[in-house]
Amino acid sequence: MPESQPAASAEPRETARLEAFSDGVIAIAATLLIIGIAVPRLAVGQTLPDALLRQWPSYLAYLISFTTILIMWLNHHTLFKIIRRVDHSLIILNGLLLMMITFVNFPTAVLAEYIETPSREVAALFYSGTFTVTAIAFNALWRYASHDHRLLDRSVDPAYVQGITRQYFFGPTLYFVAFLAAFVSAWLSLAIDAGLAIFFCFPGVLKWMRPRN
Amino acid sequence: MPESQPAASAEPRETARLEAFSDGVIAIAATLLIIGIAVPRLAVGQTLPDALLRQWPSYLAYLISFTTILIMWLNHHTLFKIIRRVDHSLIILNGLLLMMITFVNFPTAVLAEYIETPSREVAALFYSGTFTVTAIAFNALWRYASHDHRLLDRSVDPAYVQGITRQYFFGPTLYFVAFLAAFVSAWLSLAIDAGLAIFFCFPGVLKWMRPRN
Amino acid sequence: MPESQPAASAEPRETARLEAFSDGVIAIAATLLIIGIAVPRLAVGQTLPDALLRQWPSYLAYLISFTTILIMWLNHHTLFKIIRRVDHSLIILNGLLLMMITFVNFPTAVLAEYIETPSREVAALFYSGTFTVTAIAFNALWRYASHDHRLLDRSVDPAYVQGITRQYFFGPTLYFVAFLAAFVSAWLSLAIDAGLAIFFCFPGVLKWMRPRN
Amino acid sequence: MPESQPAASAEPRETARLEAFSDGVIAIAATLLIIGIAVPRLAVGQTLPDALLRQWPSYLAYLISFTTILIMWLNHHTLFKIIRRVDHSLIILNGLLLMMITFVNFPTAVLAEYIETPSREVAALFYSGTFTVTAIAFNALWRYASHDHRLLDRSVDPAYVQGITRQYFFGPTLYFVAFLAAFVSAWLSLAIDAGLAIFFCFPGVLKWMRPRN
Repeated sequence: MPESQPAASAEPRETARLEAFSDGVIAIAATLLIIGIAVPRLAVGQTLPDALLRQWPSYLAYLISFTTILIMWLNHHTLFKIIRRVDHSLIILNGLLLMMITFVNFPTAVLAEYIETPSREVAALFYSGTFTVTAIAFNALWRYASHDHRLLDRSVDPAYVQGITRQYFFGPTLYFVAFLAAFVSAWLSLAIDAGLAIFFCFPGVLKWMRPRN
Repeated sequence: MPESQPAASAEPRETARLEAFSDGVIAIAATLLIIGIAVPRLAVGQTLPDALLRQWPSYLAYLISFTTILIMWLNHHTLFKIIRRVDHSLIILNGLLLMMITFVNFPTAVLAEYIETPSREVAALFYSGTFTVTAIAFNALWRYASHDHRLLDRSVDPAYVQGITRQYFFGPTLYFVAFLAAFVSAWLSLAIDAGLAIFFCFPGVLKWMRPRN
Repeated sequence: MPESQPAASAEPRETARLEAFSDGVIAIAATLLIIGIAVPRLAVGQTLPDALLRQWPSYLAYLISFTTILIMWLNHHTLFKIIRRVDHSLIILNGLLLMMITFVNFPTAVLAEYIETPSREVAALFYSGTFTVTAIAFNALWRYASHDHRLLDRSVDPAYVQGITRQYFFGPTLYFVAFLAAFVSAWLSLAIDAGLAIFFCFPGVLKWMRPRN
Repeated sequence: MPESQPAASAEPRETARLEAFSDGVIAIAATLLIIGIAVPRLAVGQTLPDALLRQWPSYLAYLISFTTILIMWLNHHTLFKIIRRVDHSLIILNGLLLMMITFVNFPTAVLAEYIETPSREVAALFYSGTFTVTAIAFNALWRYASHDHRLLDRSVDPAYVQGITRQYFFGPTLYFVAFLAAFVSAWLSLAIDAGLAIFFCFPGVLKWMRPRN
């Protein structure tokens, strides 16, 4: 029965639609972050500049989360340049990854709300923990796709595949360090998250880790 | 007049735009689910971890709904791999389906709000009932498109088409069972919904039902 | 300077990106409608089924607005099958149209809130008035694009173009009737809006108006 | 290692995906603006028409912001017609630009809330300031891409590139004037923002500035 399908010609379209759907979800997940920043109401005697400045945790959380989701999109993009085939498991693993990326909105809002309260460590744990799980979901997707070259472009050098596998190992590890750091200090944890975002955005440093870019 | 149209060349573009629009709506419908999870406010003496954990119904509803919408996208994707032509009725049937998929956000929020109250059975009825209607909308779309091979790729084996028709019959049936179960117990109904999501995601079990994947 | 541009090859890509952007905005405009349906809070002694049923104006408004936006998308789709070139004015006219389609969310929410109050006529005026302006925006776009065959596919029959022009004239007229009807009765106005949605969705009736579909 | 990549064939796809992702974010950023317009609650003795009219600052802010984001999309579109290659830095610069475009939602809501209060100057400063920074982000993207013809289509005339560079210089300058004007009067600042939107939308005037369109 499978051979009655227009399989060969459908394959590239299939990857395209998975990428387009993923782009859609990631774009919306990033854009919805702005909803988390509420218009300030002035307390008695408070001025608007003061009220706006007091919301700095919201801006900081927006900045880190937007940049981190952008990097996730970039990583997704990099992987799907060499993933050429799609199967059911890949779609499900990709779906779980998208669910995590979308979920980032919630810990971002919690962080913005609680970073100036005594609950800040819990908020940072939740925030960095979410990034850790998301990074693990990325690894699951990649390992499934790259295992035995399963779904990859056949022309890709195995050494390049191993290079990605090696460098993808760092993501969960570093976010897990940020997670652990939150037990000591919420600010330390956030600084690591922000540092990772800057690190992945800053091309010079990155070149060291991603040889072909 | 029709023959003055660039009909033949426009056809593939037409399907592409319907798929892209559907992907957009489904992606947004899934992503908006995160808005349903509110940042908890601490009651007096309550800690943040406690407040976050108390929101487990929201997380559960997010998990089931996101996964179910993901499966709906996957089904949509599978159908449109063999649907090649688009007509007015298909666009309308597809639009009603998208309206139902988007609507899922509302019963999800109702479920998260009422699952821990005495109204839980009503919430579960509403939730599973929405999935039932959505599954029926999927069947209407498929039956219209596949009737007499109306809008399908001509090269597709009729046996494959009948296979999809047969397996699509299960969707509304199983969600209707979940709907009926809510009269007995909200938890049973939810367990069936969750079970269906896991079942459709788990490739090994699925292979039995969808031979070509 | 213009001739140094890769103009000929860029043209189809240009239309494609305008369509994709429009699809994105229309898809989001339709999907955001669901945010307008709030989770009901139970009054003392009220049951959840009762509270859910009491929200019927929200469901009705969702149904009419989603269907109407779907029809707008379909119309957009029909026009851009024969619009082949894009210029600055078309992008702006299309942008104004998208702004109106997105705006539909607001009168929809106002209608759902006020249809059961003595302000229902005002809400219906606002609702049907928005559709009238949107239909006018559609006409402006089409007349600009089709004037002197400006941006159309050269192979399209002028009689077909005139046919669309004639039938597009009905949209603003009929919605304006719904607008005027709101001075008499909000329900009459809504019935016309709903009737138009059903009329445009029902293929048999439609065939009479749109010969080639 | 790079040469083992399907680099040449992947390049156009890469630009396409960056454009599609950007379109998605910009479309959502524009559409979310409608969420900022709340359904009015009637004060005692207030009628709905009165309540709706009182919200005119929300409509004005929606109008200016939607149009301005539309123009940003148009500019993005114009640039990416001649940007042919993508590198890591361009993706990051584009991401920062998208972050700013999305952020526009927040100052828009602040403006709508405070334009009728004594804090209107601060709101206008914030609003026009955000546009200034966004225009600077556009310039950063363009200058990076066009420097030494780095990422441009090789066939593009250098004079055309310089023309864009020159005209892109006006954006931040004019929005900075609007920003400064807010120190004098919020209305003057807004009038400049609105004037710029009208100016960029009105093709006749624009022709003077963008010769090839």
